[in-house]
Amino acid sequence: MFRNTYDSDNTVFSPQGRLHQVEYALEAVKQGSAAVGLRSKTHSVLLALKRSSGELASYQQKMFRIDDHVGIAIAGLTSDARVLSNFMRQQAMSSKMVFNRPAPVNRLVSAIADKAQVNTQEYGRRPYGVGFLVIGLDQSGPHLYEFSPSGNSYEYYAMSIGARSQSAKTYLEKHYESFVDCSLEELIKHGLHALRETLQQDKELNVNNTSIGILGSGSVHETGVPPSGPFRILEGDPIKPFLDSMVPKDAPPAAPAATTDEDVQMQD
Amino acid sequence: MFRNTYDSDNTVFSPQGRLHQVEYALEAVKQGSAAVGLRSKTHSVLLALKRSSGELASYQQKMFRIDDHVGIAIAGLTSDARVLSNFMRQQAMSSKMVFNRPAPVNRLVSAIADKAQVNTQEYGRRPYGVGFLVIGLDQSGPHLYEFSPSGNSYEYYAMSIGARSQSAKTYLEKHYESFVDCSLEELIKHGLHALRETLQQDKELNVNNTSIGILGSGSVHETGVPPSGPFRILEGDPIKPFLDSMVPKDAPPAAPAATTDEDVQMQD
Amino acid sequence: MFRNTYDSDNTVFSPQGRLHQVEYALEAVKQGSAAVGLRSKTHSVLLALKRSSGELASYQQKMFRIDDHVGIAIAGLTSDARVLSNFMRQQAMSSKMVFNRPAPVNRLVSAIADKAQVNTQEYGRRPYGVGFLVIGLDQSGPHLYEFSPSGNSYEYYAMSIGARSQSAKTYLEKHYESFVDCSLEELIKHGLHALRETLQQDKELNVNNTSIGILGSGSVHETGVPPSGPFRILEGDPIKPFLDSMVPKDAPPAAPAATTDEDVQMQD
Amino acid sequence: MFRNTYDSDNTVFSPQGRLHQVEYALEAVKQGSAAVGLRSKTHSVLLALKRSSGELASYQQKMFRIDDHVGIAIAGLTSDARVLSNFMRQQAMSSKMVFNRPAPVNRLVSAIADKAQVNTQEYGRRPYGVGFLVIGLDQSGPHLYEFSPSGNSYEYYAMSIGARSQSAKTYLEKHYESFVDCSLEELIKHGLHALRETLQQDKELNVNNTSIGILGSGSVHETGVPPSGPFRILEGDPIKPFLDSMVPKDAPPAAPAATTDEDVQMQD
Amino acid sequence: MFRNTYDSDNTVFSPQGRLHQVEYALEAVKQGSAAVGLRSKTHSVLLALKRSSGELASYQQKMFRIDDHVGIAIAGLTSDARVLSNFMRQQAMSSKMVFNRPAPVNRLVSAIADKAQVNTQEYGRRPYGVGFLVIGLDQSGPHLYEFSPSGNSYEYYAMSIGARSQSAKTYLEKHYESFVDCSLEELIKHGLHALRETLQQDKELNVNNTSIGILGSGSVHETGVPPSGPFRILEGDPIKPFLDSMVPKDAPPAAPAATTDEDVQMQD
Amino acid sequence: MFRNTYDSDNTVFSPQGRLHQVEYALEAVKQGSAAVGLRSKTHSVLLALKRSSGELASYQQKMFRIDDHVGIAIAGLTSDARVLSNFMRQQAMSSKMVFNRPAPVNRLVSAIADKAQVNTQEYGRRPYGVGFLVIGLDQSGPHLYEFSPSGNSYEYYAMSIGARSQSAKTYLEKHYESFVDCSLEELIKHGLHALRETLQQDKELNVNNTSIGILGSGSVHETGVPPSGPFRILEGDPIKPFLDSMVPKDAPPAAPAATTDEDVQMQD
Amino acid sequence: MFRNTYDSDNTVFSPQGRLHQVEYALEAVKQGSAAVGLRSKTHSVLLALKRSSGELASYQQKMFRIDDHVGIAIAGLTSDARVLSNFMRQQAMSSKMVFNRPAPVNRLVSAIADKAQVNTQEYGRRPYGVGFLVIGLDQSGPHLYEFSPSGNSYEYYAMSIGARSQSAKTYLEKHYESFVDCSLEELIKHGLHALRETLQQDKELNVNNTSIGILGSGSVHETGVPPSGPFRILEGDPIKPFLDSMVPKDAPPAAPAATTDEDVQMQD
Repeated sequence: MFRNTYDSDNTVFSPQGRLHQVEYALEAVKQGSAAVGLRSKTHSVLLALKRSSGELASYQQKMFRIDDHVGIAIAGLTSDARVLSNFMRQQAMSSKMVFNRPAPVNRLVSAIADKAQVNTQEYGRRPYGVGFLVIGLDQSGPHLYEFSPSGNSYEYYAMSIGARSQSAKTYLEKHYESFVDCSLEELIKHGLHALRETLQQDKELNVNNTSIGILGSGSVHETGVPPSGPFRILEGDPIKPFLDSMVPKDAPPAAPAATTDEDVQMQD
Repeated sequence: MFRNTYDSDNTVFSPQGRLHQVEYALEAVKQGSAAVGLRSKTHSVLLALKRSSGELASYQQKMFRIDDHVGIAIAGLTSDARVLSNFMRQQAMSSKMVFNRPAPVNRLVSAIADKAQVNTQEYGRRPYGVGFLVIGLDQSGPHLYEFSPSGNSYEYYAMSIGARSQSAKTYLEKHYESFVDCSLEELIKHGLHALRETLQQDKELNVNNTSIGILGSGSVHETGVPPSGPFRILEGDPIKPFLDSMVPKDAPPAAPAATTDEDVQMQD
Repeated sequence: MFRNTYDSDNTVFSPQGRLHQVEYALEAVKQGSAAVGLRSKTHSVLLALKRSSGELASYQQKMFRIDDHVGIAIAGLTSDARVLSNFMRQQAMSSKMVFNRPAPVNRLVSAIADKAQVNTQEYGRRPYGVGFLVIGLDQSGPHLYEFSPSGNSYEYYAMSIGARSQSAKTYLEKHYESFVDCSLEELIKHGLHALRETLQQDKELNVNNTSIGILGSGSVHETGVPPSGPFRILEGDPIKPFLDSMVPKDAPPAAPAATTDEDVQMQD
Repeated sequence: MFRNTYDSDNTVFSPQGRLHQVEYALEAVKQGSAAVGLRSKTHSVLLALKRSSGELASYQQKMFRIDDHVGIAIAGLTSDARVLSNFMRQQAMSSKMVFNRPAPVNRLVSAIADKAQVNTQEYGRRPYGVGFLVIGLDQSGPHLYEFSPSGNSYEYYAMSIGARSQSAKTYLEKHYESFVDCSLEELIKHGLHALRETLQQDKELNVNNTSIGILGSGSVHETGVPPSGPFRILEGDPIKPFLDSMVPKDAPPAAPAATTDEDVQMQD
Repeated sequence: MFRNTYDSDNTVFSPQGRLHQVEYALEAVKQGSAAVGLRSKTHSVLLALKRSSGELASYQQKMFRIDDHVGIAIAGLTSDARVLSNFMRQQAMSSKMVFNRPAPVNRLVSAIADKAQVNTQEYGRRPYGVGFLVIGLDQSGPHLYEFSPSGNSYEYYAMSIGARSQSAKTYLEKHYESFVDCSLEELIKHGLHALRETLQQDKELNVNNTSIGILGSGSVHETGVPPSGPFRILEGDPIKPFLDSMVPKDAPPAAPAATTDEDVQMQD
Repeated sequence: MFRNTYDSDNTVFSPQGRLHQVEYALEAVKQGSAAVGLRSKTHSVLLALKRSSGELASYQQKMFRIDDHVGIAIAGLTSDARVLSNFMRQQAMSSKMVFNRPAPVNRLVSAIADKAQVNTQEYGRRPYGVGFLVIGLDQSGPHLYEFSPSGNSYEYYAMSIGARSQSAKTYLEKHYESFVDCSLEELIKHGLHALRETLQQDKELNVNNTSIGILGSGSVHETGVPPSGPFRILEGDPIKPFLDSMVPKDAPPAAPAATTDEDVQMQD
Repeated sequence: MFRNTYDSDNTVFSPQGRLHQVEYALEAVKQGSAAVGLRSKTHSVLLALKRSSGELASYQQKMFRIDDHVGIAIAGLTSDARVLSNFMRQQAMSSKMVFNRPAPVNRLVSAIADKAQVNTQEYGRRPYGVGFLVIGLDQSGPHLYEFSPSGNSYEYYAMSIGARSQSAKTYLEKHYESFVDCSLEELIKHGLHALRETLQQDKELNVNNTSIGILGSGSVHETGVPPSGPFRILEGDPIKPFLDSMVPKDAPPAAPAATTDEDVQMQD
């Protein structure tokens, strides 16, 4: 395939009005392991597939706390993710100190989007090579955003990024209309089913390779997950009940029964 | 196709005196979904086709409030639009604080045009990849401007930018002479008919994919749209009456009757 | 056609001692619609052909006021023109504030020429892509200058820039010796005849596509144009009498009779 | 082999979303002599193969003390290692002076990872060409991190970097589950066996080409290595007992007996 | 013709130790219309051929006053000339203000030569594309210097630059030994004869295309040129007597009779 | 031979993880005339082959004093050596002034190594093209370091750099085990024999082309070289006794008898 | 001839460890007219061949005074020479003002060598294209240095630079051993004979094309040259006696008789 200089400099347009370097950065995101996010009226959850660089390492962290009311899951270059998430944390802290209240979630997402836009326009730096799913909880309720290296950020009902995320999206598109009224437990289960779609044929979700991030408030009867509180990440054994309750791969997932007893309470 | 270095560096002229990078940036605008703007003696309106990045997201925002008396519709790179619209907002706020009155609309448009011109002349940054339709209301009445990445901005009676905007322009050119005396309702209807022209064969305008931005003052009898007030965006159900009243695609649109009872009042 | 790097970097000479980028910038000027300037003992006038970007826009402004005693007509990139004319205005204002008198016209022209020269010599910026005809009135009488992207500026008896300006120049060269003693009316008529030469076969000058800029003092009997005062632009109906009095295209223009009753008075 | 510009500029992505310069920097790490790190509940140890630039030099130093509670082994460009390890030392010192306590190990590792990330994104500097194994001891116990030029840093149970490190990793993967309960002596022996795997056919570990770095506290009966204290490097004769106790290359290494009498005590 | 990168970057030497960009800048000088300079014991004179950009413009200025005691004639890029001559004027003014006396001529010439040298050595700017003949009068008498874009400046008895200047030089070399004792009138006549040599076959010197610059003191009987005073430029009718007294092109110029009655007086 | 861009920019890695520019800089070192360094328990000595740029110049200086306790011999670009040795001198002086004691030798060597590393990583400067042998004497005894343009510096028992230094190294490797107990005289003799190996077939060491640098303390019976004191360079006649005592080229050098009467005394 | 990028950027090494740009700069020196320098126990002299850019100019200055005790002769780019010699003068003046004594000659030479080295290593500037012969007189007696664009400077007994300087060097090498005891007159004669060797077949040294620079003290009987004093340049008639006393080109130069009556007195 013949290439030209349009695609090696992020500061130029191709004749078709495209920015090749930005598109290549999106490829870097697609090579990260998948993450899934979804939200109900009361909760936002993240689910991510952890990769291990071999048996000798613990699985690599895919989720990060930004503030009590904001968490992220990443896909792409981990070192870029660290830089951007540190920046988000500083923005969050600074907001707390200056305004004495948590930063609005969309404000935090815009901050990294603006930072990323600069790298798509000015000479001397490549675009970031990482995408985020951001969940947050503020006065306007639970949120789910996707941040992309292009400098864009959109709000979603449910979303997936990373390798084979298209399969997860297909699952989510089939069920997303029911998410709004789901209990936290049901939301997590839907997320796990979506995440499972991103696995290669011979792989399975297990307590080691799966992370669950939760924001929102509500009671969770069966699994004992604390229904409300700051952003929390479930890993290891606490995940087991959820995995056990999953519909086997071949069977169609039964629509989870609606929960009715949630007491929605907004974090400040 | 053979290319050369003229088209990958925005700071050089081609032998024909052209700036290829600027022309390629205009291509980026053409790839955004369409927006239409038109104005009467009393009102300026924007109509835009929202795209969705799939069922999982709400439709992407195409219109933004800059100030009470200024609103924009965008086509092209969303992240560039965010940067430029933030800049406009700052200019508007700064004008209010310094001069204690709203910034003249043409001043705000010139500010982003100057900012964009720099990126067409100096080394190290690509041109912006987004176009705006700007409506505003000031002491000289309602306005409609187009801002383009070339650093140009022109005032129009009616205009369309984005994908297939040529079809909308054809509609507008056929009817623009009647716009000046239109009621707000008629103006919106003309705009919707023009916007519909930009749709692909099998698409339809609906309450989800259509945004209407309004500035000006006047009574709107049938639809109950508040006749005057700050820049407001209609989305969802309030749009339905307008869509319902549209002439079917095949039928020629009847010229809306002239309204006579508008009480034009300039916002300060 | 084979090209090399001499023509893509304005900071290098070709082996023939030429600056290709500057020459290409001159091409950008040649693609703008034409403007004509001429002067008598008492007046300087500008005449320009306005282009419209379609029926939906008013014709694009081709003339700009810099100060009461200076006006310009442009050909080429409009956004570059805006930047340079703003700079001229600032120079003019600054001169008034510092020296308490209008800036000498040649000083203002030199200021933009110096600014343009830098862009022909230093790395990192392209030359400006716009040319100006500048008319001014100061203690040494009426003036007409051409400013070009090369950083040059010359004084002329009469001049034309932009598309097909060569045809206008041919007209002007035939008649320029008579301009010095022309009345304002005659001067304008000569200018219109020259401007008409730049039209394509099937186009005509009309009240919409023609602008007339005037500086100087004198009585104008027939058309009622105010004989003296600050730089003023005639557009629309006031132009009609001038257009009506034009010699039809095929007929040779009769030499306008000399006016004798002008009271020349210099603006301060 | 055909190459393109993607791989000579660290600030651009390839169409596959890869940063070739970062990958080439990893090659520089692979050309350094091997280092092995592993940890138990009570100790972290480093083992490294020293190269000599000939008989005339002493073997080149492969391990460096960063602080009493942190030490590193390097593989790759020595001069880059010196720059980065000096930076780590400054961070450690600064932490002590500002907070009056040793810097947390992960903080020190993040500091160089952030520094390295910049060189993978901004124009004007190549990525660092060196990898580190970092052992540390803080309130959360003994640690082992790998730092890589990509700006990543991961925690490991056991790890190897440098030339033929894959062979060492294979050994470590086979035995790592037993490391957690190993005595310091056993840990060192496992490390030596792993390190031996990286040797070329005809080479042997000896007191000249082997370095052992130790952190943690515990009693070592047979060899007299001081069981606890600041980061210490064993070289020369003190290594001999360990080498002598190694299982011959052909024989399978006997699982070292578990030690029971360690008194684990955390350094402050 | 094959080219390479030596000739497009002024900061590199060719293998032959040449700076191609400087040589190409000298080509730009050769494309300017010719100028001639010569000096006697008492006077320095400049003679230059003015070009017109057509009938519509007055002839372009080729001579500029720097100070009462210094004047220049230029050949090459006019906009570069303006920049450099402005710089000379500032140097001259600054010298007057600081030292309360006119700047020594060679000091002024060195100032622009140093400025020009920088552009032949440092990256980011092309060499200047203009040459000067500088005449000056100071305590050491009348002077004539050539300034060239290479950053060199030499003193001459007589010199010519610009298009076809070689022909003028041939004339000057034939007669320069007699210049030292010439009267101002004779000096001017010699200059005109030399300048005429640079004309194309069918062109003639006339009062419109010829400029004469004079410095020095002495009586001029026949033509009434003021014998002494600050740098003055003769143009138009005052030149006529000199042109009328010229030997016809075919006839050999008679050696002008020596003048004896000059009262040489140095300007301060 | 085919080349690519990896080898012309010091800030990029080749796909093999190599920095070609650094390797080419090492070639520049190999083209310098040879230098030899060796050390005993009490002394460090440098021996260098001086080149002459012809009979008209004295031989070029190959050794430089940095401080009383540090001296260097260079191979490669002399102008780079001057810059780096001046930098070392400043570091040494600054250390004395700030800490009131001589700078530790390894500190001085690290200082230039750090300086050199920057030029292997950052854009805009080539690596240094010179290597040093550094001898020094501090509280830890006599030292010998090699500094290389790669930013590395290693301590050696004995070392040679420059043209044909491999031959000298072969000699040194054969004898270096005996150096530790050599007297100063024996050490110098070994050095001369090693240096002689770097000569072309028809060249000989003589009092003009040989320099000897000495640091350390000890009695020298036969030759009268002052046994202790600051860094001193022997050139010319004082070298003769050493040259005379050399084993003829063909004969095997007899092992010098061990000296026993040295009184080792450390310089402060 | 095939070229590559090694030779167009002074900041990169070729694979052979060479800096092509520096070598090309040396070519620029070789294209300058020749200069010769030599010294005795009491004097240093410079002799240079002046070129004329034609009959119309006086011969170009080849020698420059730096201070009373330092003078230079140049070969290469004159404008570079002016920049560097001005820099030397400033260094000399600054030394006088700060230390109240003349700057040591080698200090002045090192200053320009350091300045030149930077241009061989850092990006953005070409090496200087000029070489100097520097003579000086200080407490250590008369000196002769060569400065070259490579940033090197060496002391010589006698030296020649510029076009055909090899022929002069051949003469100097044959006779340099006698220079040390020469009288000033004899030294000058030797220099003239050496300089004559650089002439083309049909050229002769004459009073117009020859410059002689003198430093030192001593009586000169025959020619009346002032035996001591500050740096002085002989040009024109005073040179005649020396030229007249030269041995005809074909005859072998007789060894000048030794002078005995010099009173050597060092300038302060």
